[in-house]
Amino acid sequence: MKFRGVVPPVVTPLTADGALDVVSFERSINRMIDAGVDGLFVLGSSGEVVFSDDARRREVIENAIRIVAGRVPVMVGVIDMTTKRCIEHARVAKELGADAIVATAPFYAILGPKEIKRHFRLIHDAVDLPLFAYDIPVCVHTKLSPALILELARDGVLAGVKDSSGDDVSFRFLTQARDEEGLDLVLLSGHEVVVDGAYMSHADGSVPGLANVDPVVYVEQWRAYQEGDWDRVRELQDQATRLMRIVQVTSGETGYAAGVGAFKTALMLLGVFETNTMPEPVLALEGENVEAVAQVLRSVGLLK
Amino acid sequence: MKFRGVVPPVVTPLTADGALDVVSFERSINRMIDAGVDGLFVLGSSGEVVFSDDARRREVIENAIRIVAGRVPVMVGVIDMTTKRCIEHARVAKELGADAIVATAPFYAILGPKEIKRHFRLIHDAVDLPLFAYDIPVCVHTKLSPALILELARDGVLAGVKDSSGDDVSFRFLTQARDEEGLDLVLLSGHEVVVDGAYMSHADGSVPGLANVDPVVYVEQWRAYQEGDWDRVRELQDQATRLMRIVQVTSGETGYAAGVGAFKTALMLLGVFETNTMPEPVLALEGENVEAVAQVLRSVGLLK
Amino acid sequence: MKFRGVVPPVVTPLTADGALDVVSFERSINRMIDAGVDGLFVLGSSGEVVFSDDARRREVIENAIRIVAGRVPVMVGVIDMTTKRCIEHARVAKELGADAIVATAPFYAILGPKEIKRHFRLIHDAVDLPLFAYDIPVCVHTKLSPALILELARDGVLAGVKDSSGDDVSFRFLTQARDEEGLDLVLLSGHEVVVDGAYMSHADGSVPGLANVDPVVYVEQWRAYQEGDWDRVRELQDQATRLMRIVQVTSGETGYAAGVGAFKTALMLLGVFETNTMPEPVLALEGENVEAVAQVLRSVGLLK
Amino acid sequence: MKFRGVVPPVVTPLTADGALDVVSFERSINRMIDAGVDGLFVLGSSGEVVFSDDARRREVIENAIRIVAGRVPVMVGVIDMTTKRCIEHARVAKELGADAIVATAPFYAILGPKEIKRHFRLIHDAVDLPLFAYDIPVCVHTKLSPALILELARDGVLAGVKDSSGDDVSFRFLTQARDEEGLDLVLLSGHEVVVDGAYMSHADGSVPGLANVDPVVYVEQWRAYQEGDWDRVRELQDQATRLMRIVQVTSGETGYAAGVGAFKTALMLLGVFETNTMPEPVLALEGENVEAVAQVLRSVGLLK
Repeated sequence: MKFRGVVPPVVTPLTADGALDVVSFERSINRMIDAGVDGLFVLGSSGEVVFSDDARRREVIENAIRIVAGRVPVMVGVIDMTTKRCIEHARVAKELGADAIVATAPFYAILGPKEIKRHFRLIHDAVDLPLFAYDIPVCVHTKLSPALILELARDGVLAGVKDSSGDDVSFRFLTQARDEEGLDLVLLSGHEVVVDGAYMSHADGSVPGLANVDPVVYVEQWRAYQEGDWDRVRELQDQATRLMRIVQVTSGETGYAAGVGAFKTALMLLGVFETNTMPEPVLALEGENVEAVAQVLRSVGLLK
Repeated sequence: MKFRGVVPPVVTPLTADGALDVVSFERSINRMIDAGVDGLFVLGSSGEVVFSDDARRREVIENAIRIVAGRVPVMVGVIDMTTKRCIEHARVAKELGADAIVATAPFYAILGPKEIKRHFRLIHDAVDLPLFAYDIPVCVHTKLSPALILELARDGVLAGVKDSSGDDVSFRFLTQARDEEGLDLVLLSGHEVVVDGAYMSHADGSVPGLANVDPVVYVEQWRAYQEGDWDRVRELQDQATRLMRIVQVTSGETGYAAGVGAFKTALMLLGVFETNTMPEPVLALEGENVEAVAQVLRSVGLLK
Repeated sequence: MKFRGVVPPVVTPLTADGALDVVSFERSINRMIDAGVDGLFVLGSSGEVVFSDDARRREVIENAIRIVAGRVPVMVGVIDMTTKRCIEHARVAKELGADAIVATAPFYAILGPKEIKRHFRLIHDAVDLPLFAYDIPVCVHTKLSPALILELARDGVLAGVKDSSGDDVSFRFLTQARDEEGLDLVLLSGHEVVVDGAYMSHADGSVPGLANVDPVVYVEQWRAYQEGDWDRVRELQDQATRLMRIVQVTSGETGYAAGVGAFKTALMLLGVFETNTMPEPVLALEGENVEAVAQVLRSVGLLK
Repeated sequence: MKFRGVVPPVVTPLTADGALDVVSFERSINRMIDAGVDGLFVLGSSGEVVFSDDARRREVIENAIRIVAGRVPVMVGVIDMTTKRCIEHARVAKELGADAIVATAPFYAILGPKEIKRHFRLIHDAVDLPLFAYDIPVCVHTKLSPALILELARDGVLAGVKDSSGDDVSFRFLTQARDEEGLDLVLLSGHEVVVDGAYMSHADGSVPGLANVDPVVYVEQWRAYQEGDWDRVRELQDQATRLMRIVQVTSGETGYAAGVGAFKTALMLLGVFETNTMPEPVLALEGENVEAVAQVLRSVGLLK
C-alpha cells in the first residue's frame, strides 16, 4: 500500500497578486517532507482546486512533482463538475507524473448512484493511475455509501477513499467490510480533530489540512499508532485539536474563508508562506482575525 | 428591457458518439424562433453546461450565435465553480457575440454572502455584458436572498435574475421590492409548470426548459398575459403541465437523467433531434422509458 | 365541498401570564367571520398547537366552537409526534364538535412512506371526521408526495390537503391529477403571498395566517377569483404581500418568533388582541420591533 | 459524577396488542444491570418516547424505577415538542423517582438559539433534577453548538449531554473546552459503532442502543477503557460493530422501523422479549427480515 500514514492536502500559497508563490510552496512542501509525512495530496479542496483554472492546476502539479522529486508519493485532485473535465485533468496529472488521482462524485447536476458509479468507472478506464474517491458531501452534496464504494473496489475501479464525510459510523462499517472481504482499498480520514478515532476505526492514514501548519504532530501520532501507543495517539490528537482552534477564533468569516483562511494565515505567521492571500472571491484574514490566529499559535507554543 | 418574455434554455443535442449535433441544434433553435420565443439561453443547466469542456462550450456558443443570427438576443451561461473560471467563460461569450451572461453563485467551496457578492461584482467588472444571476439552490446549495439581489441590482452589477429557486414566496417579495424601488432588474422564472403564477407575481418572463419540446404553448401564454387574458394563461399552463409529465413517467431514473433525458427523448420522438444521447456519465432513456415519454406526447396531441 | 375559500389558521391570543385570552379570541374570530371567511382552522402551526398541552388544546377548541356557533365550519389541528397521540386529540376534537381534523405526517421519529400512509389510515379509521393532511416539510421534515396523497384520497382516507410545502410545482401536478381522476379532494394553499398563483393552480382555497391580521383582503381576493377577475386577484395579492412584510422587518428574531410574533403584534396594535404574548420559550416582540410592525401597518393604511 | 460509563437507552417491549410487556421489560432491565451497566435511560428515542402517550410514559417510568430499585441511576426522557409539555413530563419523572431528565431542543416549531437556551433554562428552573441535553439533529433538526452547551453548563442549567449528533468533530471541541474550563458537564456519546473514538475524545461514557441486545460488550469496553487497554477497547468495538449490522440487513425498511425494529427482533430471538411488536404506525419486522437478523446474531455467536 503506497498511500498509508499522513498524507496532507497541500495548501497552495499565493503571492499578493494571486500568482502561485513557488518559493513558499517549496518551503512548505519541504517542511512537511522533512517532518516525515508519508505522501502529499495536491489540488484538494484546501489546495483550492476549484479556484484554479487549467493553467494554474498544471503549474501546481508541475511544481509539486519537481519539488517532491520522488521523496514521497503524490496524489493529485482532478476535481471538476462532471466526467469529461475530470478525465482531462487526470490525463494532465498522469502526464506530469502523479502517483494517484483523486475525484469526487459529480456535482451541480443532480445525479444518482448509477451515474456516480459510471463516473468513477469512466475516469478509471481513461487514465491508468490509482483512483481515490473523495467522499465530501458538504461540497458535492452526495454521500458515497459503503455499498457503492465496496462495489467499485471489488471491480478494481477504486484504489482508496479519502473520507471527509464526517460520517464516522459509515466509515467504521466501511473499514470493517473492507477487512472482512480482504479488499485492497486504502481508507484515509480527512478529519483533523478525530484522527485518533479514525485509527481506532482501522483507517490506513489521515489527510489532515492542519498538517500544513503542524506536520510533526500528525507524523508523531501516526508513529505512535504504528507502535500501539494509544495514549500518545490521543495526547497528540488533543494537541492538534488545540491548534485547530485557529479555524474557530475569527469573526465575520465562515466556511472556506475561515478554514483555509486560517491555515494560510498561520503559515504566514510561521514564516512558511509570504502572504495569506486567498483566491477570488475570498479575501484574506485581516487585522484582529490575524491576531486571533496568532494567539492560538502562541498558546500551543508554535509562535513566540 | 431586452430579455422579456419566453427565453428557453436551449437543450444541447448530441450525436450518438457524443459530439455536438449541429444539424439538430439548428433545427431546434429555428423551431423555437419560428414559434416566436423572445430570446434564447444557451449553456444553462439543461443545456448541459457543466458537462461541457471549454471546447464544447465554445462550439455551442459559436453555433448558437451563427444560427440565431440576431433574430433574438442570446444569453450564455458562464457557470463554473468559482470566479476565475466564470470570467474566462464570460470573456469567450463576449468575444463570440453573446448579448448577456448568466452566472450562479460559486459552488463546491463553502462561501458566504460576502464572497457571493464579490463573485458577481468581479464578473461584472471583468466583462462588459449584462449579467444575470442564476438562482438555483438545488444545484449550488445557496439561495440568493432578495436583499443580496437588490443590493447588486442597485449597484448596477446585476441586470436580471433567472429564478430556479422554487421559492415562489421569496420571488414575490423580490418582484415587489424591485417595483417599489423602480430598479431596472429583469426577473425571469424557470419553473415550467407554474409560469402563470410567476406572471401573477410580476415576472418579466420565463425560462422554461419544456419550451424546447413545445415552444408554442409558452409563446401563446406570454401573449395571452400581455393581453391580460388570464383564463387563457391558465389554460395554456394546464396544457404545458400535462406535457411536463414526460419527466415523471420514466422509472429507474432520477434528477438530470429523468429531466433532461425526457426532454431529449421527446425531441427525438418529435424528429427535432437525431438522438437522445446524454452526456457522460448519464445514459439516454431506453426501451419502456422512451415509450412512456411517447405516450405522454400522444396524450397531448404532439405525436400521432 | 365544505371547506372551500378562505380558511384562516386562527392565531391564539394569550394574556400576559400565558393563559388563553378568551375575549381577544372571540373578538378575532368574530372579526374574521364578519369579514366573510369560509371556515376557520384552529390549532394549526400558527395557532401554536405544539406549544399547547392537552388542557389548552381542549380550551381552544371548546371556545372556538362556542364562538363560531355554526356560522362557518371549523377544522381542528390534531398535530402530534405519532399516531396514538393524534388519535387522542382527534377524539377530543370530534367530541367537542369539530367539522374536520388536520394531521401532519409523524415527526421526530424517522419514518418512511409506508408508515406515513399507515399513520393517516389509522387516524381516519379511529375517528369519523373528514381528515386533512397538513403538508409542512419545514416542520416535519417529510414532503407528502402527490402519489401518496392521491393514493390516500382514492381510498377515502383523506378529504383534503393543507399545502404549506412551498413546492408549487408539486402542488400543480397534484391539482391536475386530482382533476383528471375526478377525486373528491380539497386542496388548500397555505402560502399567503402567492395565493393568486395557487388559484391559477386550481386550489380550492387558501389558509393564510395573515388573514388574522387582514381577513378582508383574502375574502375579496377569493370573491374576485370566483368572478374570474384575475387582475383584481393579483392586485389584492400585491396588497397582502405588502402587509406580509411585518414578518420581515424585525431584527434579531427568526422563524416562529418573527412570524407568529409579528401576527400577534399586529393584532395587538390593531386592538384585536390585548397582548402580543408568545408561548414559552418564545418571547414577544418588543420596542423597535413593535414599531417596525406598526410602520408596515401604517404604510398599508391599516393603522393611523 | 453519577452518570459515567455505559448507560443504555432502554428499548420498550410491547405485547402483541401494543401494551407494555412488563415481564419482558423486567427481564431486559435485569439482564443489563446484571451485565454491569452504569445507568439506564428510559423513554429515549429508541425507548419509543414519542410514540408513548402520557399514561404509557408514566407506566414505563414507574416500572423502570420499581425494577431497577436503586441498583443504578435512571435517566428519564422528557422529550416533547415544546417547553410546557417537557416540564409536565419532567414533573412526572421527578415524582416517580428519576435521577435525571433528558430533553431535546424544541422541534416542529422553527426556533433559534435564543429560544432553545430559554427552553432548557425553563425546564431546569421548573424541576429540580439534573438536566441532560439530548443533541439529536436527525430528529429535531437543530444541532446544539458547543458554545450554546458550554454557556448553559457554566450557568448550571445543564448537567450533561447525550450526543447523538453524529458530529464527532464538534464533540471533540466540546470535550476539550469542557476540560480546559474545568466545567462539571457529563458528555456521553450515543453512537454505538464508534464508542472507542468517543472514549479517545474524552467522553464520560456511552448510551448505546445496541447494549440492549449485547450489554456485555459495552460494559467490557468501558472497563478496558478505564484500565487503559485501548487495543481491547477497539477489539470490543469491532465486535459490537459486527453485531450492529442487524440494522442494515433488512430490506424494505428504513429509519426507526429498521433500527429499533432490528433491536426488538434480536431481543425476541434471544428470548429477552416476547414479541418484536413496534408502536403504531410502525410494523414489526417479519419473515426474511427476522431471519436476516437471526443470521447476524448467529454469525457473532449470540444465537445458536
